[in-house]
Amino acid sequence: MVMKRVYNFSAGPSVLPEEVLKIAADEMLCYQDSGMSVMEMSHRSKAYEEIIGAAAANLRTLLNVPDNYKILFMQGGATAQFDAVPLNLMKNKKADFVDSGIWAAKAIKLAKKYGQTNVLASSKDTAYDRIPELDPSKFDPEADYFHITMNNTVAGTRFYKLPDTKGVPIVVDMSSYILSEVFDVNDFGLIYAGAQKNMGPAGVAVVIIREDLMGECMPVTPELYNYKINYESGSMLNTPPTYTIYILKLVTDWVARMGGVAQIQKINEKKAAMLYDYLDQSNLFKGRVAKDSRSMMNVTFVMGNEELEKRFVAEAKAAGLVNLGGHRIMGGLRASIYNAMPVEGVAALVDFMKKFEKENK
Amino acid sequence: MVMKRVYNFSAGPSVLPEEVLKIAADEMLCYQDSGMSVMEMSHRSKAYEEIIGAAAANLRTLLNVPDNYKILFMQGGATAQFDAVPLNLMKNKKADFVDSGIWAAKAIKLAKKYGQTNVLASSKDTAYDRIPELDPSKFDPEADYFHITMNNTVAGTRFYKLPDTKGVPIVVDMSSYILSEVFDVNDFGLIYAGAQKNMGPAGVAVVIIREDLMGECMPVTPELYNYKINYESGSMLNTPPTYTIYILKLVTDWVARMGGVAQIQKINEKKAAMLYDYLDQSNLFKGRVAKDSRSMMNVTFVMGNEELEKRFVAEAKAAGLVNLGGHRIMGGLRASIYNAMPVEGVAALVDFMKKFEKENK
Repeated sequence: MVMKRVYNFSAGPSVLPEEVLKIAADEMLCYQDSGMSVMEMSHRSKAYEEIIGAAAANLRTLLNVPDNYKILFMQGGATAQFDAVPLNLMKNKKADFVDSGIWAAKAIKLAKKYGQTNVLASSKDTAYDRIPELDPSKFDPEADYFHITMNNTVAGTRFYKLPDTKGVPIVVDMSSYILSEVFDVNDFGLIYAGAQKNMGPAGVAVVIIREDLMGECMPVTPELYNYKINYESGSMLNTPPTYTIYILKLVTDWVARMGGVAQIQKINEKKAAMLYDYLDQSNLFKGRVAKDSRSMMNVTFVMGNEELEKRFVAEAKAAGLVNLGGHRIMGGLRASIYNAMPVEGVAALVDFMKKFEKENK
Repeated sequence: MVMKRVYNFSAGPSVLPEEVLKIAADEMLCYQDSGMSVMEMSHRSKAYEEIIGAAAANLRTLLNVPDNYKILFMQGGATAQFDAVPLNLMKNKKADFVDSGIWAAKAIKLAKKYGQTNVLASSKDTAYDRIPELDPSKFDPEADYFHITMNNTVAGTRFYKLPDTKGVPIVVDMSSYILSEVFDVNDFGLIYAGAQKNMGPAGVAVVIIREDLMGECMPVTPELYNYKINYESGSMLNTPPTYTIYILKLVTDWVARMGGVAQIQKINEKKAAMLYDYLDQSNLFKGRVAKDSRSMMNVTFVMGNEELEKRFVAEAKAAGLVNLGGHRIMGGLRASIYNAMPVEGVAALVDFMKKFEKENK
């Protein structure tokens, strides 16, 4: 039963490469010569160990992860990391943060349980319409880490430049950024990302941690939140979300077939330019955020008329362009154009917006 | 590519109903009229809210869960619950435990971080070959809860009778027990179970909690381990493992089509009797555990000859009967015969064992 697929602009869980879904469907009852579905495999079986090993190896190659960084698969998405990071890293009981969106704010809120959270900059007062400016004199050289959200899924903004933290490790939430463009792992102490944007289905998070940061954690740390023992067990402290990691493996195989992250980045730049260029000359639609903070993955825009926005979302849906409403807290409109969204999907959206503008001027 | 499927006796992740896998394959690219895979759906979409709602409703119906018990979907399997239970329930900082297997022992070990763990009985000294006897005078009426593992997946034992705890709530790990036979939810304060035996793929745990036990938790409790806010958010504190819950929904649909838990129990009793009856009259194979403690889901047995056991596992595999080795800690042999293992699979195993016995006497 394959009906016509829509263009899905959901912010996450989000569109996956059709090729990946076809392989998954094809292998659902029987993976290779195993006689069973990947869902049914013991996580300790040779077949499954190859799958999880390939998933980690794909990430290491695609992201050019140096040997002194370890790759972990954990559960609970980025939210689990909001607790795990301070539980593992807050030795001096203080960390610095930038409040650039609702997930950044959540990370700050959850870390407060374990120590002092110093917010060095915030754009909350302007509805997170930009990455706030950072005053370098505010950096605390004794902070255990400096935390940012690389791309703000809800607001539609992103960091373009990392500050010089004078040796304080940068911890970064890359949930809606990882695999979308080239970056240098060495700039960070710890990288984490929920899979459900550019890596796979919801239910697994990737953690990339510099090995010297994997030390003793607070005594109250739950077993599954302890980086060191997760690493020592090969991300098999207990049964990992086996099927979700298998899809992540298929998605990273696909990224490699596309030519790797540098090639994907070129396509992503093209897709984002198509949308932002149109927004910049439209009289009806306006980009929501400052030009120097624009996200390449989540394009947020408004019409300044809630009724019209609702109608836009409904008519777009009828035309096969779905999930264009903004986040329930932020309102407005949002098109998430992750790796798996084809150029054709963005072209179809821009065409539809032009038509809508003509009909509603 | 559908090759011949094997009979998979894995202890978990484990065999799933073929019907369920076929539906999943069929809907992989397009769920109903959504135009997308369930993996690609926003967890806030109407289509997905229906799926997760149906999953919870199926469990409520199949397990006859009273209204004053809440059903939560959480991540991290049973291991997360080993920490979450004390973090939420240990008000008086003490709880009673039975050490009936390696997972029971792990639950005790992890709870120690948060308070006093009193082990009322243990069968560790006899390699967990039985459910240990409980002395009722040892119960502490001020304990916050009494914890047991209903079915011990590794050892192959199970509880047949619950003790009278004089009002102390029983907390039970039902990972390899839930949905296998009828039980009364009212006997317990809190039930938890990883999905990857009788409910679906790895990556989600079900928690059934009496609402009066959902109160304040310890201040250091990570966000995702807090039962109350998980409940208040409808298990959507953050993005749940959406696809895994969808498969759980399909599996519970299947249990309902089979006639519900009472009907499944009859089949399970038949399958277990086929294996145990053969073991009781075999001269080569011997059941590993005390007869009054035998698990209906995980049948553990030995030959007393490691070489022969290895050969048995290898020859069985060649005959399409896979994953018959015991747990790496326990050794010996194990056949896990969860709900989705058909009677034909157990019959094939018994036939193979008979043949092997004849060839090796």
